[in-house]
This record gives sequence, structure tokens and C-alpha cells, in this order.
Amino acid sequence: MISVEEAQGQVLSRIMVLDAERVTLLESLGRVLETDVISDIDVSPFDNTAMDGYAVRYADVRDASESSPVTLQVVDHIPAGVQPEIPVGPGQASRIMTGAPIPSGADAVVMVEYTRVGENAGSTGGTVEVLRPATLGEHIRSRGEEVHEGETVLLRGETIGPAAIGLAASVGHDTLLVHRRPRVAIVSTGDELVEVTEKPGPGKIRNSNTHSLAAQVLEAGGEPYVLGIARDTEEDTRALLGRAPEFDLMVTTGGVSMGDFDVVKKVLVEMGKLDFWKVAMRPGAPQTFGTIGGTPFFGLPGNPTSTMVGFEMFVRPAIRKMAGFTALARPRVIATLAHDTKKKSDRRYFLRGRLTRSPEGGYTAAISGNQSSALLTAMHRGNCLISLPEGESFVPAGTEVMCIRIDLEEGTA
Amino acid sequence: MISVEEAQGQVLSRIMVLDAERVTLLESLGRVLETDVISDIDVSPFDNTAMDGYAVRYADVRDASESSPVTLQVVDHIPAGVQPEIPVGPGQASRIMTGAPIPSGADAVVMVEYTRVGENAGSTGGTVEVLRPATLGEHIRSRGEEVHEGETVLLRGETIGPAAIGLAASVGHDTLLVHRRPRVAIVSTGDELVEVTEKPGPGKIRNSNTHSLAAQVLEAGGEPYVLGIARDTEEDTRALLGRAPEFDLMVTTGGVSMGDFDVVKKVLVEMGKLDFWKVAMRPGAPQTFGTIGGTPFFGLPGNPTSTMVGFEMFVRPAIRKMAGFTALARPRVIATLAHDTKKKSDRRYFLRGRLTRSPEGGYTAAISGNQSSALLTAMHRGNCLISLPEGESFVPAGTEVMCIRIDLEEGTA
Repeated sequence: MISVEEAQGQVLSRIMVLDAERVTLLESLGRVLETDVISDIDVSPFDNTAMDGYAVRYADVRDASESSPVTLQVVDHIPAGVQPEIPVGPGQASRIMTGAPIPSGADAVVMVEYTRVGENAGSTGGTVEVLRPATLGEHIRSRGEEVHEGETVLLRGETIGPAAIGLAASVGHDTLLVHRRPRVAIVSTGDELVEVTEKPGPGKIRNSNTHSLAAQVLEAGGEPYVLGIARDTEEDTRALLGRAPEFDLMVTTGGVSMGDFDVVKKVLVEMGKLDFWKVAMRPGAPQTFGTIGGTPFFGLPGNPTSTMVGFEMFVRPAIRKMAGFTALARPRVIATLAHDTKKKSDRRYFLRGRLTRSPEGGYTAAISGNQSSALLTAMHRGNCLISLPEGESFVPAGTEVMCIRIDLEEGTA
Repeated sequence: MISVEEAQGQVLSRIMVLDAERVTLLESLGRVLETDVISDIDVSPFDNTAMDGYAVRYADVRDASESSPVTLQVVDHIPAGVQPEIPVGPGQASRIMTGAPIPSGADAVVMVEYTRVGENAGSTGGTVEVLRPATLGEHIRSRGEEVHEGETVLLRGETIGPAAIGLAASVGHDTLLVHRRPRVAIVSTGDELVEVTEKPGPGKIRNSNTHSLAAQVLEAGGEPYVLGIARDTEEDTRALLGRAPEFDLMVTTGGVSMGDFDVVKKVLVEMGKLDFWKVAMRPGAPQTFGTIGGTPFFGLPGNPTSTMVGFEMFVRPAIRKMAGFTALARPRVIATLAHDTKKKSDRRYFLRGRLTRSPEGGYTAAISGNQSSALLTAMHRGNCLISLPEGESFVPAGTEVMCIRIDLEEGTA
């Protein structure tokens, strides 16, 4: 048996980051950039107004006030999207809408709220009274204020969120080069499995792991491909495991413990390479990792909770590394354990638990239900895995324990 | 101008939770259950072993030890998936694989690690030596230990994660009834907009808001439908806004400030009902909310950051309510402001900021870049909105401020 950390280290040393593909902006959401994103223009591409109002000359309105308003002649009306052609001369102003280019001659904008339309006012022509002073450059967004042409706006390795998508769009990119999502094959094993729609007969149970695993793959950023159930024969197991090289990763459940009918391990050794097959952890000590034809292979145990915890500890970091993420560990917090816990001293325990904020500001961690590894209820109700270290056979209530927050994305503070 | 809280209250009071649809287990990931999920069987459906080993009679092996092992006659070999037919009598044992049903007569399982195969051992027949005592019922998972037939395993209103999917599968559900994802129409407005692939000419800018909004809708749990750009004519605006009743929600950007060319508000008043059109906040005071033919309508301002912040404050909670979520507010934390900030006292400010853990354990919040509302860089680099309250015109460094964590899902602690 190797430790969880050793096992994670072995896995990640074998996993390679996948190549890139070009996708639409919306498809890039949540993916990792494979290349820097460069701007093809200045943003803003021209000086423009941040407010609706009047483009004016600062020198004309520096002393304007309610009691002594400055009257200007309105020479133009500039909507957004139109290049103004009439300059603003001394004693003049142009009506201007948010986003519209600043006309030549003007060097400040007075908000419409601080003006009063004068007599004979039309769309253009007539006069406007300015009721407050302006500062030089007020409400003007300068050309290149955000970004200059040729500047890098997004960096290789960054994760794409909605703001990054908006930024990419504004600098001319309607597609982005991102790391591929790993294609993950899922195989269940066991003569005891029946499909979900079947009512299990004597000795049979439903194949639920395929479904929870597919959801875990999707959440981790992979694309799940369900290959079906391999029965407990070498022939059947060989046929499905032999498909591993069609995918970036293969995950099986069941068939890797010490049972005489566990053929997965036998077939794996014969077809590929075995790195480890047992990890000092509970639930889920029988965790197999190796390669088949170069494709990384995870043989997770068959108990539903062991499968999910094994995925969380080994497969999820692998999928994220392949997809280009550099943050591979879920956020961890220290919490006060709520109850005495007995354990075997030769392995790490991962209790399915729930973190709550204690009134003093710290966290308390309590189990979120029955800890049998056949039960998913505690996993469903929990938001963390409470990690109890090797070497201890009893952890009393009140101990500070490390909790892995499975409700939070990697890389959040 | 109404306050942010008043505006949010008005929005949510008009938003109705959507009806349900039946989807596959994988499609249900991240959705909200519309009905309880009931088990059609006992789980486990039969007493079975949690370990590979030997099914024994407790009375035979209660005193077994390395120094005085108990020798039992092996009468059967039970793989998972097979109903055993040979009972275990006194002095007998059956080899048994993880998950296999417990044979009659047996009331404990001894792990294979604590046995030694005796002479003449075959698949069945021969003998086994038990080297450790067993306790009554040891390693036996009882019928119905997780769930009894007819019991509720998932509750209406719960969010579906991978463990819930596994639970649903194990109790016979290959589809689930969940709230519909809102269909959200997205309309950009403005004569100044050109498509991303075009190089903007004089006075023009690229239509980036459509893309950031579609990503925000997707992240919030909605389905984005991009209807295109409405030019600044009543006819064009009327044609696109008139499509609102085809959708669950409509969001527009631009066209709602005080500009003479802002026709959205005019058309909205004519076609629908206007609830509010200005909120005491920055960025993005011009926030319009109303209904067109019964469909809720959000008119967000056109500046990229104002659009995103307006979405975050008003549209995202609306989408989540429609999709059945009850947690509608992002997690908030108190942090120490890193720098002096001047503001207008008549409105709430939402600075785009970054939270970092300070060495003492609390959080520090600093702006994540230029705060111009035309710039998405600070939004991209940030992980929170720093909320600075109305009534203040200056907030000094060191003030405890409330920060909205836009990097975390609603409902996480």
C-alpha cells in the first residue's frame, strides 16, 4: 500500500496536458487558454463620451454655475456610431450621446443633468446653458485607455469566464484556442450489475456507478463516454479495456479487490502497465492505476462511495491537468471535528462530512450520514471530505482536522 | 432612483418558478428537483458482504487467533451476482466475494487477509484456517441498511450533484423531474455596434456584450438565445423586443440611458410595463426592469462592466429563481479595504476587486484594475464586487467592507 500523496504524485507524473482546439467564445467558457490573446485594435478605438450630455471646450465652462450659467451655441447632435464632422469652436457645444466620438475642438463633456436647454433649441441649433463647471477631459474615455493595439489582453493558462469572453470579443476574437477536454471512457464491471430500469433479482444490484461517474467526469471538465458493463470474464473485460487507446483516459469500477472473480487486474497486467493497485486510504483502498496502450487507466473500487472518493482523489486532478488547469487541489480548510472517531491506524480516512461555520468564526466538521461505503447518502448531503491521518487509531472530538471542500472549485481562495 | 435592494425585491416578486421537465440523469446535473425521489427497492436489496473473505458462523470463530486458528470446511464459493444455495453449517464456511449475498447460516464475514488456506483447498471443498476472531455481523451490509422500499431518498428542491445521480440510479430512476432551465433572449442595441469579426470603423465598437451575457446566462443555469443587434430605430427595436413572449426572459444591453437616441425605453413603455429604470448604483445606474407580454424584461446599460454587474445583481437571481433554486445570493464576506476610495454619496458602488487572505486570517479587498465601466479587465481579474454603501462620499483604507464573491456559487458556506 502506498500513501495518498505518493499515489497522486505517480498519477500526475504520468498525465500529460492535452493539445489545443479552436472553439467558439461560448464553448470556451470554463476552459483553459492555450495561447495569449492579442488585441487587433485600440480599445476604445477613439476618444468617446462616457455620459449623455454636451461636448464642450473646458476653457468656456470652467467657471459655470447655477447662478451664472454659461450659454453655448449648439452646433451638432452626435449619436453613438457616427463620426462627427462639425468641430466645436469657442462658445459652441455639440449634443452627444454615450459612446459617441468626441468632436474636434471639444475637451470635456458636461452631463445633460447639469445643463438647461436654451431658447430656440432644436435637434441642432439653438443654445444650451451649462450650470456646473467641467474639469479638463471630464467624462472622456481616451483612445487606447483599456488596451493598445498589439497588447496582450488574456494570458495562456488563464481560465475563461464571462468577462474574458467579453474582452476577447472586443479585441476581435470570435474563437479561442483552448486545451481539449479529455475524452473519458467509463466501464462498469461485475456479473451482479443490472441496468437502472431493471428491478434487481436475487444477488443483483443496479449499475449506479456509471451514472455518478459520468456526472463527476462532466463536472471535472471531461467528456464522459459510457462503454457499458464488462461481465466477470477475461474475454469481456479484455474487449472493453482494449478500447482504452480510443480515449484520453479510462475509468472502470469494480473488479480490482482481492476477490477470485476480479479479472480487471489480471487483464490490466496482461494488456498494459500497472503502477499501483492499493492505496492506504478508506474508503476505497483498492485503487488501481496504470496505462493501456499509453492511455492512463484508473480501476476504481466498486462500492459507490469508494468509487466517488477515488475519483475525487485521483481522477479529477488528472482530468484537470489534461484540460490545462494548473490548480489541481480542491480548497482545504481546518475545522474542529464534532465527534470521537475510531479508525485503523494504517490508512488515511476520508469521512463524508459537512462543514458549518461556528459562531466564533471557524468551521466545525461533522459526518453527513452513515459512513458505510455502499451508501451515497452521506456523500450527497456532505460538502467536504474530513481527512484523518495515518498513524492515529482514535481521533477525539475537538481535534483540528483538515477538510477537503468538494463543493468548491480548485483555485478559489 | 431606487436602491439595489428595492430593485432586487421588485424583480424577484415578479419572477415565477418555471414548470418541470423530465430529463436523463446526466442532464439533471446541477438542476433542481421538482419532486421527491422514492426508492422502489430495499438498498442493499439483500444481506451482502462488504469484503472479500469467508462467510462463517460467529459462534465458530469468536475465539480464533494466530496461535490457535479455527479450521473450517469450505462448502461453497460465492461470486457477486449469484444467489447462494448451500447453507453454512457449524464448522463450515463459504468463500465469498465483495457484494455477494450472505448464505443462510452465516452471520459474519472474516476478511481473506485473516485466513490461511488449508490443505486440499480447491475452489470449494478443502479447509480454511481463521486466524482472528470475528464479531457478530462483521462486514455484513444488511438488507435495507441504506434505504427501505418506499422511502424518500432525494427531496424536492434539492440540487442534483453526482452523488444524488448515483442515489437516484440505485433506487430505480433513470430520469428525473427537474425545473426547466429558463430560455433567455439576448438583444444588443445601438447603431455603433459591429460584429466581432469586423474591424470597427470610425465611431464604431464591437458587440462584445452579447458574448459576455450569453456566458453569464449559461453559468447562471439558463439557455442563451442570441437574437442579434437592434439598430436605434423604433421599428427595429419593436421587432426584436416583440419576440420577448417566445422566451422566459429577455435581456437587452444599451439604449436605456438618457440619450435622445435611446429608443428601448420608449418602445418598452409602449409595448409592456415598466417597473423601474434607474437604480442607485455604480456602475450601471440605468437598469430597466419590466415585462413585455408577461415575459420579464431586463434593459441593462451598454457599458461592458455595467452590463455584467447589472446581470449579476438582477438577472442572475431571476434566472436562478426560475430554475427552482432557493439560494439566490452569492456568498458574502467582510474584508478590509486596501485603499482610500472617493465616491458619490447618492449611490452604492460595486468596485471590481480581488479578495486575498491576510496572514492574520481575515480577508483584504483591493480593486483588480482600472474601474472605468468600459473596461472588462478588472472584472476578468477580480473575484468579487466590493460594495461601498450609499450615504458615504469617502471610504478610507482599513474600513471593513462587504464583498460579494462572484467566484463562488450561491449557497456555499
